[in-house]
Amino acid sequence: MTLTQVSSWKSFGGTLSVHDHESGLLGCTMRFAVYVPPQAKDGPVPVLWYLSGLTCTWANVMEKGGIQEHAARHGLMIIAPDTSPRGEDVPNDEAYDLGQGAGFYLTATQDPWAKNYKMDPYITDELPDLIAANFPAADMSRQGIFGHSMGGHGALTLHLKHPDTYKSCSAFSPITSPARVPWGEKAFTAYLGAPSIAWEQYDATELVKERPSKALLLIDTGTADNFLEPQLKPEIFIKACEKDGQRLDYRLREGYGHDYYFIATFMDEHIAHHAKALKA
Amino acid sequence: MTLTQVSSWKSFGGTLSVHDHESGLLGCTMRFAVYVPPQAKDGPVPVLWYLSGLTCTWANVMEKGGIQEHAARHGLMIIAPDTSPRGEDVPNDEAYDLGQGAGFYLTATQDPWAKNYKMDPYITDELPDLIAANFPAADMSRQGIFGHSMGGHGALTLHLKHPDTYKSCSAFSPITSPARVPWGEKAFTAYLGAPSIAWEQYDATELVKERPSKALLLIDTGTADNFLEPQLKPEIFIKACEKDGQRLDYRLREGYGHDYYFIATFMDEHIAHHAKALKA
Repeated sequence: MTLTQVSSWKSFGGTLSVHDHESGLLGCTMRFAVYVPPQAKDGPVPVLWYLSGLTCTWANVMEKGGIQEHAARHGLMIIAPDTSPRGEDVPNDEAYDLGQGAGFYLTATQDPWAKNYKMDPYITDELPDLIAANFPAADMSRQGIFGHSMGGHGALTLHLKHPDTYKSCSAFSPITSPARVPWGEKAFTAYLGAPSIAWEQYDATELVKERPSKALLLIDTGTADNFLEPQLKPEIFIKACEKDGQRLDYRLREGYGHDYYFIATFMDEHIAHHAKALKA
Repeated sequence: MTLTQVSSWKSFGGTLSVHDHESGLLGCTMRFAVYVPPQAKDGPVPVLWYLSGLTCTWANVMEKGGIQEHAARHGLMIIAPDTSPRGEDVPNDEAYDLGQGAGFYLTATQDPWAKNYKMDPYITDELPDLIAANFPAADMSRQGIFGHSMGGHGALTLHLKHPDTYKSCSAFSPITSPARVPWGEKAFTAYLGAPSIAWEQYDATELVKERPSKALLLIDTGTADNFLEPQLKPEIFIKACEKDGQRLDYRLREGYGHDYYFIATFMDEHIAHHAKALKA
């Protein structure tokens, strides 16, 4: 489990670093970023995972999300993984919403994807082991998870499936029920085959019906988000949470879009939400 | 003086927008960004210019600088121009530090640059006229200027030449005496010809000797900046300011680099510096 450091910068008193590693699980070289806050020099700090959206890498949130400022204030370590396996030997598709950059945080069962596309155990097992082994300040008993769009949905599903691991959860502009929208239908059909029980296991709305968590979910979505109606459909998720007793704070933000200007605007509130839960 | 809006996003309660216009002065289409803070709906707000460094455009500071958060808190309008004339018909060079993206905020006298490279009057005259005509909340009687690297130097020179226009000035990692370092020697030779009085008129250290301003200059530079010794040379400028009575707060920031992670870290202090002067 060797890491190769690609770059490192000082940021808000802490250190942002980018690393490559050979993923045995995914069968390719993977890249991720870690922000270690200044408090880490005094002892263990909680770990907050940020899952990015379609086409993104570690860089989007670290460059454009304004995340370091708030992570430094609250003393959280931030991990930003990639959104899929990558590389010339990894199956891909020309579309932006399938293949590389569009892993949907699931384990594919269909060819040609099944060999490499196993993003959920990569996020929940392989990468945490690497973090624990290489970043001694990471307190793996206090983890939270959040993300944007496809990654917001990934955060919701991983939290609902592993509530004892990810004790806090939030999302920006998440897809809330991929089984019911074009992005998800396309990806799930390719990765999982025809609609089946497997789809439900990767759909946050189905999961919340089956196993609501005890956490308060925080979600922000912009009213000027072009993907709001066709892809995100907050009302489906809100209704499921109300019916099944999932605590949810869902805010529609007037005039904001699907972009990182929106994310940066409300990053402080999301980081505070996680800090409150993880440092309780 | 028609503007074509290219994009617009809501950000920290205000609006970031990007515009194209035909520059009669530069003989090409120019693109810039404006952040209008939420306070602008209640009346005029001060205008703060951010000049970017080599290779950059409006996007660097708006995407990676974390500038909107602090501009929104203090109620400042931010203008981010491009760093040179652009386009297929504009002379260029393959190097990153000459030609497009490397205008050095000066007026070239040498061929082939002289026809288009007139960045100082573009910043001080043409673009302000456009801003005043199209952004009614811009209070052009309260302007400040800052920037990064080549743009930090540009801000210093424009402030020193026009202290009544730019009442406040600061810089991240500025070149402080281009006439004495490789970046500047290369660009000045190309744009201005052999060393002459013209070089001195575009060199912040020479200008501060000749005409120190009454303002307090704020400068931050990282000690891990790879360009610190060969290109930035803060000690030359510090000595000139001490000798000639220019007030200067020059901070060397331990472990920080030449990047936007550094800039974002100290953006709050720079914005506060300008707000204090412009809202006094």
